[in-house]
Amino acid sequence: MKNKGLLFVVSAPAGCGKDTILEQVLSRCENVGYSVSATTRAPRPGEVDGVHYHFRTREQFEQMIADSAVLEYTEYCGNYYGTPRKAVEDMLAEGKDVILKIEVEGAMNIRKLFPECCLVFILPPSMQELERRLRKRGTEDEETILRRTAQARTEIDIAVNYDYFVVNDELEVAVDDLIAVIRAEKFRKGRCLDMLKEIKGE
Amino acid sequence: MKNKGLLFVVSAPAGCGKDTILEQVLSRCENVGYSVSATTRAPRPGEVDGVHYHFRTREQFEQMIADSAVLEYTEYCGNYYGTPRKAVEDMLAEGKDVILKIEVEGAMNIRKLFPECCLVFILPPSMQELERRLRKRGTEDEETILRRTAQARTEIDIAVNYDYFVVNDELEVAVDDLIAVIRAEKFRKGRCLDMLKEIKGE
Repeated sequence: MKNKGLLFVVSAPAGCGKDTILEQVLSRCENVGYSVSATTRAPRPGEVDGVHYHFRTREQFEQMIADSAVLEYTEYCGNYYGTPRKAVEDMLAEGKDVILKIEVEGAMNIRKLFPECCLVFILPPSMQELERRLRKRGTEDEETILRRTAQARTEIDIAVNYDYFVVNDELEVAVDDLIAVIRAEKFRKGRCLDMLKEIKGE
Repeated sequence: MKNKGLLFVVSAPAGCGKDTILEQVLSRCENVGYSVSATTRAPRPGEVDGVHYHFRTREQFEQMIADSAVLEYTEYCGNYYGTPRKAVEDMLAEGKDVILKIEVEGAMNIRKLFPECCLVFILPPSMQELERRLRKRGTEDEETILRRTAQARTEIDIAVNYDYFVVNDELEVAVDDLIAVIRAEKFRKGRCLDMLKEIKGE
C-alpha cells in the first residue's frame, strides 16, 4: 500500500522557534522532506544556497513564475519568496511527506492548490512571552518588536483556518507534538477511505 | 492551562490485537487512563475484578442502570456489558485522557453522549490476515471463524463513522500510531479555539 505523501504547511509568527522545531523534526523523521524556498534576497552570512534558500536573481525568479515553476510566491520588502513546484511534487509522488515553511497568506494559497494539505500553526505560550523572546534576541529595536507582536496577532487571526496548533513552550515538547501531528494525520478518516475498501477486498 | 482530558473510544474486530495494543499504549502514556467496563458475565481464569472488568451480579448491574451509573450498556449473549460513568467523568475532570474499549454500537452511543469524543478503529492489514490470525489462535472452530470475519466486515462498515483508523500490521508500529493519534488530537483546530483566545489575551 504505497501512498502519496502528505503536504504539511508550517507557519508561525517570528520568534516562535519555528526554524529550530523544524530542524529537529526533519532530523528525526526520515520520511519527511523539506521544501526549500526560492528567494531573490541576498544570502545572509552563513546561509547556503539550496539549504536555507535557493538564491535566485530577479530575472531567474520571474522566469520561474512565467514557467509555473513556483507553486506560490509573494513579494515582501522588494524581494520575491516562493515554493518551487517540482521538488514538492516529486517528494509527494515518492510517498514522502513534505513540509513547507511559509507565512499565513502563502499557506492559504497552498490550501487552494492542495485542498487536502494539512496546515500547522506554531504558537507562543502567550503574547507576553513572544515579546520577551523577541527582546531577548537583542537584534531588533523597540519599534520592530512592537511591529512584530502586532503582526503576530494578525497572523494568529488568520490562523483560525489552520488544522493544528502547536504551542512552543518547551522546545522538546513542541518537537514531539509536531511529529505526532505528522504521524497521526495519516490515520484521519478522510485519508483512509480507500484503505478501508482495500482491506475489505473491494 | 489545565484542560479537561479527551475521551477516546477504541474498537476493533476480534483478532486485531486491540487488547495488546491498549496494554502497551497505557503502559507508555502516563496521562491516559483506562475505563474498566462492568459486566455480569463470570470471570474467566486469570481475570481480575477491577482490572479486566468490574464483575457484577445481574441485580447490581440493573441497579447501576437505574441509577444512571453507566454511560452506555449493551446485552450480549445474555450478559450485560457497560461503561461506569463516574470513573470516566472523574478522570476527564482531572485532565486525564480516557480510553474506552467498546464495540461499534456502544461507540456510536458514546458519540451521542460526548460529541467531542474521538473514535479510533483498529484494522487488520487484510481480511485474509484476520482470518489467518483467528485460525492461528486455535481456540475457535471453523464456524466461529467464519462468523467472526463476517462480523468484522459489518463492524468495518459501521466504522466509517470513526475519526481515525490504525492498521495493526506490526504491533510496535500500531502502538506508536495510536500514541501519536492520542497526542495529536489535542492540537486539532476545534479543540484549540479557547487556547487561541487565551494566548492572545482575550
